Amino acid sequence: MAPATVRAAVCGATGYLGAQCVEILDRHPGIELTRVLGRGAAGRRFSDAVPGSRVTLEVDAGVDPGDADVVFAALPHTVAASHVREWLSAGRVVVDMSADFRLRDPLAYARWYGVEHPAPDLCEEAVYSLVELHRDAIAGADLLAIPGCYPTASLLATVPALRAGLVETEITIDAKSGVSGAGRSPALAYHFAEVNESVSAYGVSGHRHKSEMLQELAAAAGREVRLTFVPHLIPVTRGILATVYLRPVAGRGPADVTELMRELCDGNPFLRYADRPPATKSVTGSNVAAINVTDQDGVAVVTVVADNLVKGGAGQAVQAANLRLGFEETAGLLGASPWP
Amino acid sequence: MAPATVRAAVCGATGYLGAQCVEILDRHPGIELTRVLGRGAAGRRFSDAVPGSRVTLEVDAGVDPGDADVVFAALPHTVAASHVREWLSAGRVVVDMSADFRLRDPLAYARWYGVEHPAPDLCEEAVYSLVELHRDAIAGADLLAIPGCYPTASLLATVPALRAGLVETEITIDAKSGVSGAGRSPALAYHFAEVNESVSAYGVSGHRHKSEMLQELAAAAGREVRLTFVPHLIPVTRGILATVYLRPVAGRGPADVTELMRELCDGNPFLRYADRPPATKSVTGSNVAAINVTDQDGVAVVTVVADNLVKGGAGQAVQAANLRLGFEETAGLLGASPWP
Amino acid sequence: MAPATVRAAVCGATGYLGAQCVEILDRHPGIELTRVLGRGAAGRRFSDAVPGSRVTLEVDAGVDPGDADVVFAALPHTVAASHVREWLSAGRVVVDMSADFRLRDPLAYARWYGVEHPAPDLCEEAVYSLVELHRDAIAGADLLAIPGCYPTASLLATVPALRAGLVETEITIDAKSGVSGAGRSPALAYHFAEVNESVSAYGVSGHRHKSEMLQELAAAAGREVRLTFVPHLIPVTRGILATVYLRPVAGRGPADVTELMRELCDGNPFLRYADRPPATKSVTGSNVAAINVTDQDGVAVVTVVADNLVKGGAGQAVQAANLRLGFEETAGLLGASPWP
Amino acid sequence: MAPATVRAAVCGATGYLGAQCVEILDRHPGIELTRVLGRGAAGRRFSDAVPGSRVTLEVDAGVDPGDADVVFAALPHTVAASHVREWLSAGRVVVDMSADFRLRDPLAYARWYGVEHPAPDLCEEAVYSLVELHRDAIAGADLLAIPGCYPTASLLATVPALRAGLVETEITIDAKSGVSGAGRSPALAYHFAEVNESVSAYGVSGHRHKSEMLQELAAAAGREVRLTFVPHLIPVTRGILATVYLRPVAGRGPADVTELMRELCDGNPFLRYADRPPATKSVTGSNVAAINVTDQDGVAVVTVVADNLVKGGAGQAVQAANLRLGFEETAGLLGASPWP
Repeated sequence: MAPATVRAAVCGATGYLGAQCVEILDRHPGIELTRVLGRGAAGRRFSDAVPGSRVTLEVDAGVDPGDADVVFAALPHTVAASHVREWLSAGRVVVDMSADFRLRDPLAYARWYGVEHPAPDLCEEAVYSLVELHRDAIAGADLLAIPGCYPTASLLATVPALRAGLVETEITIDAKSGVSGAGRSPALAYHFAEVNESVSAYGVSGHRHKSEMLQELAAAAGREVRLTFVPHLIPVTRGILATVYLRPVAGRGPADVTELMRELCDGNPFLRYADRPPATKSVTGSNVAAINVTDQDGVAVVTVVADNLVKGGAGQAVQAANLRLGFEETAGLLGASPWP
Repeated sequence: MAPATVRAAVCGATGYLGAQCVEILDRHPGIELTRVLGRGAAGRRFSDAVPGSRVTLEVDAGVDPGDADVVFAALPHTVAASHVREWLSAGRVVVDMSADFRLRDPLAYARWYGVEHPAPDLCEEAVYSLVELHRDAIAGADLLAIPGCYPTASLLATVPALRAGLVETEITIDAKSGVSGAGRSPALAYHFAEVNESVSAYGVSGHRHKSEMLQELAAAAGREVRLTFVPHLIPVTRGILATVYLRPVAGRGPADVTELMRELCDGNPFLRYADRPPATKSVTGSNVAAINVTDQDGVAVVTVVADNLVKGGAGQAVQAANLRLGFEETAGLLGASPWP
Repeated sequence: MAPATVRAAVCGATGYLGAQCVEILDRHPGIELTRVLGRGAAGRRFSDAVPGSRVTLEVDAGVDPGDADVVFAALPHTVAASHVREWLSAGRVVVDMSADFRLRDPLAYARWYGVEHPAPDLCEEAVYSLVELHRDAIAGADLLAIPGCYPTASLLATVPALRAGLVETEITIDAKSGVSGAGRSPALAYHFAEVNESVSAYGVSGHRHKSEMLQELAAAAGREVRLTFVPHLIPVTRGILATVYLRPVAGRGPADVTELMRELCDGNPFLRYADRPPATKSVTGSNVAAINVTDQDGVAVVTVVADNLVKGGAGQAVQAANLRLGFEETAGLLGASPWP
Repeated sequence: MAPATVRAAVCGATGYLGAQCVEILDRHPGIELTRVLGRGAAGRRFSDAVPGSRVTLEVDAGVDPGDADVVFAALPHTVAASHVREWLSAGRVVVDMSADFRLRDPLAYARWYGVEHPAPDLCEEAVYSLVELHRDAIAGADLLAIPGCYPTASLLATVPALRAGLVETEITIDAKSGVSGAGRSPALAYHFAEVNESVSAYGVSGHRHKSEMLQELAAAAGREVRLTFVPHLIPVTRGILATVYLRPVAGRGPADVTELMRELCDGNPFLRYADRPPATKSVTGSNVAAINVTDQDGVAVVTVVADNLVKGGAGQAVQAANLRLGFEETAGLLGASPWP
């Protein structure tokens, strides 16, 4: 049953993830965007802070979602966690795009993020909302934790094969991300003349997103997984590519992984099996993740591409909210080409 | 007569212009780089602040050039002007890449830069060092004012024809600059995801570089010139292109401008006449400005390209210093491919 | 009155302009895409030839639009002209994105394109469909000539002021285009390593698009206009920027042009007045043209940006077709983020 | 003892690798460039075919090196092999940048390149000239086989640790290359609008460069190595990055690999140990390879960056030739910033 119109607020609305969320909600047939919140641009029209947007709501300071039924939060870590209880207690659904509720274990959060969790008791309640892998749990949850862009691409490539027992638990993931993944705050590391015409690895000793991957991979495998994960910065605005190296267990081969992934794609509106390793450009601006499996001398090389701000962020947030709120899974997610 | 080795210091050494200057001087056969100064990176090795450099001098805070005979200054406007007297009084040659000594009239400086000139009496003494247009004056000067990148390209395209009386004094210049021209300080306007895949005009109501162009154009024409100058930001790291629209005076045509520019190029080691409108890439990393003149229905369309950090900045600074110090004009300027 | 569903075919469907048209039509609420035609990819699924597309129609060779009511043609010049009579005689509406029917005078066509016009008698019948400037004529036409991307941006900037008699008829237009404007056929001039990190002027002695601009400018001014038009290649995929230099007639000033353009934007769903010179990125993927007028010492500098494949091509084609077929002007034009 | 001036010819001179070689040789203090050969641009001045070059030799058709003492060949595979015997028999040194003499086993060549080797008996004679790893063999060789760009980066990262017995022989290499690595021939896959703003894997089932890596890794390890190698296309013009995943053998750790690589860098003028994972931009235009080793939970992640056309091609060719001809290893290799 389709719900009556739902009112939504977006926190952190003028960052890239928040702005992407605003654009999607603005086109959503069942959701009315009633409030956009953001510190930096408070008092300005949204379209003045985000070039090209047709949303002219005034940006509010603070984190009061007003009469919104659902809150989409694209805030720095710890900020959303400090307000979620208040939002939930007013009967709202909360869709959090930060890292705050991705880890079930508040101690792991403290270890990886270097700060105590502001609402440790809520960690257990949150649902890790990588839709295609956790569809059933989402429908009944009030606190949806949207995975990061790296985990989205990486887990789509690995969890199905681990669940099916097809591959070894020693896994290497080499990921490449566009620069918008680093957000909209200026810094030398994302200054045009430094980034342009260059590629480099970063976070090699241990990127924070590794923590949620370890959690999800262990759950899929039923035991610890030995993961090596190296992210790279690529001079494109949008796009993420995970190149995943999986070794089939004895008696299995890359073809089994291929078949499994074809089936997964067939059953999900936003997954597409690509006959050749897909280019990030083939999914730019869309909520689709494209997947290929290729056999290289017995190793299953899985490549997954997505738009880091859509399927790797705000698109997945709306996709998960659609399931929770009773909309079509694809509602509001078939158009859109926003900034940046 | 070739001089003995000259010692040089670079102020503002870790910005793009300063770093480019450091790289050139490091390879210069007659100059020894003895000191690099810079606020942000003080105490670190130069090569740690500027990736890829092989210069390992420690960066000093402050503006004391030590025992240097010549000071190359790549500082924000007003900063160099506050120290030049001191540098000069110790018998040093000063090569200033800022805007501080480009305008002869300190009042014009105050008007365009919104601040009183810190050393107004020195303005008259400085030589505007666009080498090909002011070669004679440079040899005897102790204070060399290096033109900005926009003026370098724009004046090379216009001054010769104005001096020769070939063209009208109503001139339109549409210029395109790479992002490194905006310097190395992070800002949203130069954040990769904002700049990439985009082009826009800026400073349309009146860019500061217009002031020095007005001065030089008037000197060339012998009277006021009506200039319209619009700069644009292009998503490339290096490179500047000026597209200049000149209307020949009665009895003259674009072919006269072509001939004049061919001759100019023939007589200068760092100017190259291009048979077709040149691409900025053809001069990236070099001190060459390439020039073409094309006739479009009677209008002489002059296109000039240069590397904004080399011929449009540090390269020209060294070229001018070479003349002043008695080196070959091309000394140190035939290699180099530095950051960014 | 909204029409029953209209069937459409796209010729030249796997080039950039054609593919953009396919993507828009695929999302159009009142148009059913029934046939995609294209030489190179004949026999393959459309989505195999255009990565990321969800259109799975098989690409047909030839130029038979089948049972389509409307034909969108994105073909090389002379090709569409050779088939239009046949398409029209079957009662179809033809929307031609090539240059074939933009010039009313077949002799001018021969002069600028170096080939005799294949259907000279149809030139008079075609309507030059820059929607905001020729809205009334479009509703009754069966042959719609969609302007090129350069003319779209350039004429939006100039025609209104010329019609209103606000500006002189000596006009300079300096335009910058993304590389997709050159089409999808590989050539050294558009090879990544040649184009990337570079900018250059081209077609300086006379670009073909100048012909249709001269025609339209003369019609607007009521007399010959002296136009200087220089296009530039910019290393972005999509986007066009026209920087237009207009001199107000005596008694008028840039403010009059500003006011006129604000009004124009207010009355058109796909024009947006920007308070500052707009960046092409602010309209990427959309059918909007954004316009700014800035006064530089008495000259009205008008900047217009558009996505060259949407408002500068396929988007405008659908916008014009909407008017002709009785759909909402914006139908099908509010989403979309296609390749490239 | 420095040799008298050596005369050099470059075959395939107007491709990217050939042109890079020409630029380096043009600045080389001991080598005189006497002939440039190339099919496509035959009869034109070199500087007309390669924008920005100052080399004005006329390009010759054919493959006759004239009076050159040394031939640098940048030709498609099989072409050089067909002429090498002739070149050698005239007493010349041959520096081949193609794949023709990298494999010792002509049968492996036939298998990987799908064509019979044109000069199988010469395979044994050639020296695989990755300078830092095969320095001793180069001095006495007349046929130098320059490694590909992927192998250069990949082998520098792996061979030392394998030779020292520090790591397991199951190795994963995820490599990223700029587009110039694909050469200068236009193709849709390297068309600006297709490549720009995108990243993808290719050659996943087995890239040809894997063959020479397998050969060299096996030689280093003293036994078969199980290599998984996946190359990626990155939207930059120049630059290559290999991210290499090495598992230390029992009793050893990443710190041992770090120490080994630091020592290697200390002893070689063109290797630089970087304290953090290096960006390709830090070596653009130079012959330096920068290397970092980082420990991620016990795995040694080695990142190596190089300019694919310099250290990954023409620079290494000249570096090897310098050793063979008795020049300083660095002769001619400290400047240069050429097209593209």
